[in-house]
Amino acid sequence: MNEILSGKVKTVYDVPGEADKVLIKFHDKVTAWNGKRVEFPEEKGKVCCLISAVLFEKLEKLGIRTHFLGTEGFDALLCRKLTIIPVEVIVRNIAAGSIVKTTTLIEGTLIQPPIVEYFLKDDAKDDPLLTYDRVRLMGIDPAPMKERALEINYHLQSLFTLMGIDLVDFKLEFGYDVHGDLYLADEMSPDNMRLWKRGTKERFDKDLFRKDEGDIVKAYKYILENLRRFA
Amino acid sequence: MNEILSGKVKTVYDVPGEADKVLIKFHDKVTAWNGKRVEFPEEKGKVCCLISAVLFEKLEKLGIRTHFLGTEGFDALLCRKLTIIPVEVIVRNIAAGSIVKTTTLIEGTLIQPPIVEYFLKDDAKDDPLLTYDRVRLMGIDPAPMKERALEINYHLQSLFTLMGIDLVDFKLEFGYDVHGDLYLADEMSPDNMRLWKRGTKERFDKDLFRKDEGDIVKAYKYILENLRRFA
Repeated sequence: MNEILSGKVKTVYDVPGEADKVLIKFHDKVTAWNGKRVEFPEEKGKVCCLISAVLFEKLEKLGIRTHFLGTEGFDALLCRKLTIIPVEVIVRNIAAGSIVKTTTLIEGTLIQPPIVEYFLKDDAKDDPLLTYDRVRLMGIDPAPMKERALEINYHLQSLFTLMGIDLVDFKLEFGYDVHGDLYLADEMSPDNMRLWKRGTKERFDKDLFRKDEGDIVKAYKYILENLRRFA
Repeated sequence: MNEILSGKVKTVYDVPGEADKVLIKFHDKVTAWNGKRVEFPEEKGKVCCLISAVLFEKLEKLGIRTHFLGTEGFDALLCRKLTIIPVEVIVRNIAAGSIVKTTTLIEGTLIQPPIVEYFLKDDAKDDPLLTYDRVRLMGIDPAPMKERALEINYHLQSLFTLMGIDLVDFKLEFGYDVHGDLYLADEMSPDNMRLWKRGTKERFDKDLFRKDEGDIVKAYKYILENLRRFA
């Protein structure tokens, strides 16, 4: 199969004979600090792929347009081909990560109502924070992404609350299809979310790897099992 | 005199017997890259002090509250004592500097209408960009600073246009007095502004030093002379 794009932990392929589709393969690989730290945990690709599948399916049922069309085996998603917007969209319900490092906010501070932030997808520039105005000036309309991100947050928060998990923050990517319709893209897994056991800071996300605090595959499997029960 | 605060190029002193005033002394010193590069150009303190005095006086006449009360000699300003808000406010009319490095915008792009940005005053964190939401979450209301900054921009743009100069961008700091009234603070000089000869990128500001492209004191004196003629 023809490779379109090789990311840090996923590869995107053309689907022969189906120009409007792509196949996204998840690797047994985890990276942090802009690729400076790398490991290859067994089953990690599969677990992230299956969590993404459950969450995309759930969101589709709730009326959110996603690029998800189905799974191919256990470690690949069949998806709509989109023009990806080069902006990472972050929704924050609780302060953690970069917002704590670059403001006076303390980790764990409740952010109510939740906020939506934008970061430039550009590893060479270290994915800098953007303001709403900066996104707009770059010729990208942040308004529909913001609205969609808050809708997704509403649904995911309800789901994770059922599971006894606080959805601290998460990253989304969006893309447009040939008709100009906006779709949720990329993956939805604990690689791109912070998930804390309700009311604590016990982690079930990639921070376990970033901070070298535990087995991410075990934690991600716990999330997958619970999602299958509650989603 | 009792020193209250020692900045990179200015020192703030108490005024004996006048608890609501401070004296701000301007040094013959210029720094860049968060203090990593330093020089001591003769007369630089005096020129920055006098440009600030002209601009504060002009803004006061136009109804903008500033901390300026008068000059003391040629290199010090007598000012109201304020509680300074730890946020740097930037107004941008043309893209240059950090916004060019951390977005896809090209230097020289017209920003119309102008935008107001916020940066955390924290050298240890390298003065990171803040969003409007981040300022708000830190317990600081950005709205009155934004409104005031745009008013100041309106007046300064008119003034610099008379002088054949494009006001590219500039930094402001604000503070509250004991009654809770907002005042423009800090200095107003080409150390904190980008000034380009109208329609070109010929600089009359600190970028001459940052980029090692010319004599800042000569350029700043040109600005002072013209301000005295037109302000």
